[in-house]
Formats: sequence, C-alpha cells, structure tokens
Amino acid sequence: MAYQPMYKKIASDLRNAIDTKSLSTFPSEQELMKSYKVSRTTIRKSLELLKETHVIQSHRGRGTKIIKKTTPHPAGMPNTNRQIIGLVMAGFTDSYGTSLLKAIQAYALKMNYFVIMRFSNQSAHDEALYIKQLIDFGVAGLLVFPVENYAEKSEVLTSNIKRVPTVLLDRQIENYSLPIVSTDNYHAAKTLTKLLLQMGHVNTVFMLRKGSNNSAMDERIRGIKDAYHDFQRTIPDDAWQQLDIPDATSEHYYDRFQKSLDEIRNRLVFNKKFTCYMALDFSCINTFIIAKDSLTKKINRVSFLGFDGPPYLTSDVKYNRIVQDEGEIAHQAIKLLDNLINGVEVPSTKILIEPKYLDNHSVFPV
Amino acid sequence: MAYQPMYKKIASDLRNAIDTKSLSTFPSEQELMKSYKVSRTTIRKSLELLKETHVIQSHRGRGTKIIKKTTPHPAGMPNTNRQIIGLVMAGFTDSYGTSLLKAIQAYALKMNYFVIMRFSNQSAHDEALYIKQLIDFGVAGLLVFPVENYAEKSEVLTSNIKRVPTVLLDRQIENYSLPIVSTDNYHAAKTLTKLLLQMGHVNTVFMLRKGSNNSAMDERIRGIKDAYHDFQRTIPDDAWQQLDIPDATSEHYYDRFQKSLDEIRNRLVFNKKFTCYMALDFSCINTFIIAKDSLTKKINRVSFLGFDGPPYLTSDVKYNRIVQDEGEIAHQAIKLLDNLINGVEVPSTKILIEPKYLDNHSVFPV
Repeated sequence: MAYQPMYKKIASDLRNAIDTKSLSTFPSEQELMKSYKVSRTTIRKSLELLKETHVIQSHRGRGTKIIKKTTPHPAGMPNTNRQIIGLVMAGFTDSYGTSLLKAIQAYALKMNYFVIMRFSNQSAHDEALYIKQLIDFGVAGLLVFPVENYAEKSEVLTSNIKRVPTVLLDRQIENYSLPIVSTDNYHAAKTLTKLLLQMGHVNTVFMLRKGSNNSAMDERIRGIKDAYHDFQRTIPDDAWQQLDIPDATSEHYYDRFQKSLDEIRNRLVFNKKFTCYMALDFSCINTFIIAKDSLTKKINRVSFLGFDGPPYLTSDVKYNRIVQDEGEIAHQAIKLLDNLINGVEVPSTKILIEPKYLDNHSVFPV
Repeated sequence: MAYQPMYKKIASDLRNAIDTKSLSTFPSEQELMKSYKVSRTTIRKSLELLKETHVIQSHRGRGTKIIKKTTPHPAGMPNTNRQIIGLVMAGFTDSYGTSLLKAIQAYALKMNYFVIMRFSNQSAHDEALYIKQLIDFGVAGLLVFPVENYAEKSEVLTSNIKRVPTVLLDRQIENYSLPIVSTDNYHAAKTLTKLLLQMGHVNTVFMLRKGSNNSAMDERIRGIKDAYHDFQRTIPDDAWQQLDIPDATSEHYYDRFQKSLDEIRNRLVFNKKFTCYMALDFSCINTFIIAKDSLTKKINRVSFLGFDGPPYLTSDVKYNRIVQDEGEIAHQAIKLLDNLINGVEVPSTKILIEPKYLDNHSVFPV
C-alpha cells in the first residue's frame, strides 16, 4: 500500500505469508528486526496488530503462535483488494450528504483506503447492481447509503449484500439488519417534540415527503409518538402531512411546488389550531423554504423547524433545525468497516450518533 | 472487466496477447470466431476497436497486421488498472460541482470505469499528493478539477502530473497546458456583458472572490473587458470588487459576511452610478444572496446577475445567471479521457462547453 506505515506493511506481509502457508512457525522479534531492518518498537506494533486481528497469539516466555492458518476470507468470499472500499450512495445535496461524502473520503484516506464511489440516484435496481459490481471487482468492504426501502426484494441484492463486510449509513435495508451507523433519530425527534410540547405546541403539523419510507423516518415518527404519549397527549389525525416534493433539479421544479404550497396554506392559514410546523425530511425543507417565502406574512404566528438543510440559508429562511453530525457518522462508519474487514471484534455493529440542535429563533412559545 | 461487452473483452484480450508477445501473427476472423465462440459481427467490432487504437492494421485480401508490438505505455509509465480512473476534485457544492460529480460517475459507469475519488479541499499539497497516490496505485487515467493556482510549483505535482493520461475539468493548471474540458467562460461573459451594455448598464459592479485565481475567472474577466472594448467603453476603476467570502461551512460564516455586506452596501447604496451587480464566482453568490436579502429594499433599482448557484433558490433570491452545463462537461471529459487512455487520436484536447442563461427577471434596462 503506497502510504501505509511500515508496521502495517510488515503485519500485512506476515499475514500474507501465513495465509499462503509460506510461514509455518512464527519468527522471533529478533529475527523480524533483522529481516525487516526496523526497530523493536516497529515490530511490536506489527505484532500488536496481528494479535488484535487474531492472526497470532503470544504468551510471555512461550513465544508467538500462529492461530489463523487459513485465508482470512470464509469459503465463497471473493478475492479482495484490501486497499479499496466501495461506497454506494442513494444521493446527496448540501442539505444532507455532501458533508458525509467529503468526510468519508477524508477518514478513508486516513485509514489508507481508496474509495470507489457509485451513486444509485434512488434506484434500487442500480444499487443492487453496483453492490454486485463492486464486490465482483474486489473491494475489501462496502459502505452503503441505501435507497428508499424496496417494494420487492431484489435477487441481485439478496445474493450479494453479505458477501463482503458492509456498513450501512443512515438507513437500514429492510430484513437484512446489517451493521449501521446513523443519527439517533428516535431520541432527536422525541427530545425535540417534548420541547415543543413544553412550550405549548400541542398542535404541530408533521410534514413528510410522499414516498419516503426508510428506517430513519420511522425512528423519527416513533420518537414523536412516544413524546406525545409521555405527555399523555394524542396527535390529531390531520397533523400528519405528506407532500409531493419534486427533486430540486427536476425540470418543473417551481411549478410542481405550487400544489404542495397550496396544501401547506390550507393546513396553516385556514386552520388556526396549528401553532407549529415541523419538516421531518431534509427535502421537505426545500418546500418549506419556498412555502415560508410566500406565506410568511400570513403565518408569522407559526413556529417552524425541521431536520437538516443547506448551510447557506438567508435570514428569511433561517429556522431551528436538527443538524446531523455527518463528520462523526463518516468517522464511525469507516472505523467500523475497517474493523470488520480486519476481523477485529467490535462491541456493537449499531452505532448511533447524536445530532446538534441549531436554534435560529424560529420557534416561540404559544 | 465485470460488465464489459464481449467485443471489448476480446479486444482487450488480444491487445494483452500482443503486449505480452504471446501473439506474433494475428489470427484470421474465422480462427477468432472459433476460439472465442462468437459471431463474425462481434469479432469485427473487436477488430474495429483495435484498428481505432492503432494496434492492428488490415487491408482487404492481405489479412491483418500487428502494428503495435510494444506495451501501450511509454517507458517510465506505471502499470495501470484499465478499469479504474481517478478523480481529484478541489471541492463541490450544490451551486457548482455536485451535478458534475454525479454526471462523471454516471458517464464513467457507461464506459465501464470505476472511479476512485479524492477531494483536495482547495489544498495544492493534497492535490499533488493524491495525484501521485492514484498514479502509484495504478489508475488508467485521471480527471482533475484543480485547486486555485499555485503560488509555487510543487515538485510532487511536476514529477507526476503527466505520468498517465489526464483531463482537467473547469480550470487549467498553470504552465502545464493539459487536456481540458470547461465552460466557454470567455464567450459567456462577453455575450452577457454586451447584453448589459445594450440595456444601458455601463456601470456594473463585477464581484470576485478574494484569492480567486484561476483560468476560468481569467477568461470571464477577459470576456467582460472585450465586450466593453467592442462598445468603445471603458470599465470604471471602482467597478471591480473583491470580497472575502467565507466558506459556507466555516464556523463564523454569518459574522464574516458582515464586512463583505458593508462593502456591497457602500458600493451600491452610496454610489448611485452603479445600475447593475454581477457576481463572477459561484461562491460570491452566497454573499450576494445574503446581501440582497438585507439590502433589497434600498437597492431594488439595481439589476443582479451572476454565475452558477444552487437550484433551490427562493423567490427572494432568484436572479439571472449563467448555468454551466455540468452534465455535458462530465460527458466530454470522460469521452476525452477514454480516448487518451486507449491511444485514440482526438481532434482537440481543449473542449469548450456552452452554458445556459437563466432569466429570472432580475435584470432590467436602465
């Protein structure tokens, strides 16, 4: 590996020698220092790595024993290039995903990985295909930011998703329960909703994107419901609002917003009971920005808040929001994947990251 | 290659055989059909590819002759993996770069390439290092969206940048004149400025980002100057405005804007001669959005326009703008790189793409 530290190179070299059975008894530290022309410290770091990954065992005074004589891949696993990981991402924008992508790149680099990227553009078909292609190509592991859940199971996905170590970002893939790193969406939504209830907002509109169907959203909805439950309140039936959100780059972007805009207007202007409007999905924020833009004079009594959003909002569309810690999600995901690739035991394969709450003074007590 | 069409596989196979000298005389179509168990059409497509890349020559009735018996890489070239290209990108946001990145991925996929990405985050040091790392790793070619021009030449860059086929995106690297695909910045700026002059805007502020120093910006400035020259007008000295533009994700983002905001105010509110404000750099647009936001009541007599910007602007910050055709830049860049990798002669290694002009009614005649 081009920029691998020496101790890692030696560890990888020794591991290969064990894998290919060209090494049957393990050399002493002295022998290794001589043959690699490095210091004892370097050799000890290499050995530490091999111990961590359960390749060797050593006991004081009894030397070092090889405990893993077979190839590191279970039967049926493809030959992999240990330098390369694959990243399959449903999509990204400045609102959510761009920082994640940049941070994945930065942390992967720190761990000496090259990252091959594929964007599935919310296509389940392409996602399954890219996963297969990357595994066939020989990546050591995969990071997958999945598309919305599948209506039908894809055979391509089913037969491939577990062939190499895989860590999911943000969302689960239904029925697979793979290792995952995501925001703690349940607690974020629950805490936020409790805060609103404490401020007197018992009638909040919860806006969702039509067609949105993923575990992150499920967790947020569960958090909201549990907050109401804790306050012994029930959520009004008309509180949930599903809106058609056109993609920001689609051709009839502004036109298609018109209908969603009318729906927001109907909910807020003609129904005075609602005191608060919460967008649960970053893409809702786009609608919301435009909605607030044209509605702001009529609805300035309403509190606004949401999840995510681009960093460069104008004063007109600043709002309180949950900002996911994309850097930390990337950091933990790469660490977890690296451990899985190297066979290091991990305490948990489900890592939840706490988001930040950004107060832009768009929420006021009733 | 996992999803390579059969004719490409056969061509690559034959080329390898020639490179490794295991093939000294070229087989006949009949022999090839038999040994690969494919149709004559497929074999002919393979041969066509080998002819295009100057590996073989064939003349009616005289059979096929090998014209390239050596390895395809000149002396000193690294061994490459023909499936992988590297992409080193200075940065990207929804305003400019995100669509380019997505399109590069999509077109690379169509041409059966895997793309390893590295983001240099405007660091010349990292850019040079990543280029070296990717070449050492064995990419077949490189796409580079360069950082702002270097104050000093980097030895790492100098010794590596021409080791594999490389296509630049958007900007030149000073003193290297590598193949490049970019927007036709000169003509876009010239045409736009002529339009403004025709509408009576002889006093326009041209806003640049402080520290911005690249060929795209140079071309835009040249276009503006030539438009004035054609109209036998001179540009007032105080027309050029350089602003400190903090990165949208930097911590003191809103605070740091305050100073830039004051400078815009001074230029427009206290100097009534200016009738138009043009931002030459997408990152200026961020300032401009916020500036317009807080200045709009005092400066509604001023026309606003710029280059690039995110797709989801609110009605408040809609403005006329030059939108670069990121999809077409990606398309042409991948095509050019593929040709260079395969040794196909190309008519030009400098490809200019025409942008679109989006009229959002923020420009009115004087």
